[in-house]
Amino acid sequence: MTAAIEKGDLLYTGKAKEMYTTNDPAVLWVDYLDQATALNGKRKVAIDQKGLLNNRISSLIFQDLARHGIPNHFIKQLSDHVQLVKRVKMIPLETVVRNAASGSFERKFAVPHLTKFTQPVLEFFYKSDALDDPFINDSQVAALQVADQATVAEMKRQALLVNDRLKTIFAEMGVQLVDFKIEFGLTADGQVVLADEISPDSCRLVDNQTHQSLDKDVFRKNLGDLTTVYQEVLQRLATVEEGGQH
Amino acid sequence: MTAAIEKGDLLYTGKAKEMYTTNDPAVLWVDYLDQATALNGKRKVAIDQKGLLNNRISSLIFQDLARHGIPNHFIKQLSDHVQLVKRVKMIPLETVVRNAASGSFERKFAVPHLTKFTQPVLEFFYKSDALDDPFINDSQVAALQVADQATVAEMKRQALLVNDRLKTIFAEMGVQLVDFKIEFGLTADGQVVLADEISPDSCRLVDNQTHQSLDKDVFRKNLGDLTTVYQEVLQRLATVEEGGQH
Repeated sequence: MTAAIEKGDLLYTGKAKEMYTTNDPAVLWVDYLDQATALNGKRKVAIDQKGLLNNRISSLIFQDLARHGIPNHFIKQLSDHVQLVKRVKMIPLETVVRNAASGSFERKFAVPHLTKFTQPVLEFFYKSDALDDPFINDSQVAALQVADQATVAEMKRQALLVNDRLKTIFAEMGVQLVDFKIEFGLTADGQVVLADEISPDSCRLVDNQTHQSLDKDVFRKNLGDLTTVYQEVLQRLATVEEGGQH
Repeated sequence: MTAAIEKGDLLYTGKAKEMYTTNDPAVLWVDYLDQATALNGKRKVAIDQKGLLNNRISSLIFQDLARHGIPNHFIKQLSDHVQLVKRVKMIPLETVVRNAASGSFERKFAVPHLTKFTQPVLEFFYKSDALDDPFINDSQVAALQVADQATVAEMKRQALLVNDRLKTIFAEMGVQLVDFKIEFGLTADGQVVLADEISPDSCRLVDNQTHQSLDKDVFRKNLGDLTTVYQEVLQRLATVEEGGQH
């Protein structure tokens, strides 16, 4: 199928990705861009190799999740910056899973940084640039008809499975998974499927030894060189995944 | 029991109420104050008769709810400004039930004013002056150990029962119940019980004929004389409740 795949029209421009149609209506073409944004896109900077690194990291993670019983939209990595994915109808909710307090949770509830939760915390944010992606609860999701109850329950179920597997992968890499954001889509027959990307852009990662951030906070907070950090994540991940595939 | 009740020490000062202990450890003394606040207490104004009106309205509603199978902390109205209630351990969550879009929901999701929901929307806010009462979801309530899962489920169940009964009462008064805020406490044996107050301070009410606000928005938005409006609510409520008690 993918041998003859051709890039079509631009469908959507994200913060660090562009999505295109292809000659196969069931397949989308994703370009991972060499750029980072912060403050909801207000700050945008070109960063050498970032697209390549996130494409590779996300490809390895999606393949790992599929092997561990969590299907997702990933089809294959086509080149350094290109990934092919199954076309799904995106559900306009960001699903955040937290294992420890950081970011908006820490600020909102004045909880000490990296306080561990006994159970993961699940949050939804309604994807809307105009509304600034507001935090939303299940009852509001239903009232606004963003997703039906069964879909929300399935998203939660899969989010917790993703968390369990990611925690294991990152633990093998010597990294604490503090929190992460994922997005889901619906297939033509209504199945909920993990989509978007999983990378240091969408996870908060802390090195177990040095306690340094290994994620986009390096960029957000000007803590150092993002490329070096993402390369470190990819190197450790590749080691774990190459070990894990035997 | 209440014949010999004596007012004790000040326990708590709210926005428009003061709570005191009594000589009975199971009973609290509530003074409904002739004042209104807005902007989380930053604006405070003395308003003639407001305490008397809210005490009477809240007393009538609590008695109505008890007759309709929704137990609550109300014991009796002792005088114009005083109510006796059962002492409970307050759960630090404001429970908001919405039948139509208004206030923070309308602003947050840019939904037209008074858009009706097909099902009531339920929201929790974490009571903390220091944190400015943040909106909180069930998962965060669990993580912060604000309330356990069974308590949250029981609060939701009772909140929907309260909504059903209040909608009926207000419909008989020619009034639309847009939304309201309630609070719950726990008895010594762990039962969830409705507490605090239910009055035009804690409900959004719209006259079916004139479409005028009949609640604290009159004060918040300087729409007219609060006392006149609350008197109107009490008069209609008393008519309905006197009819309803036969």
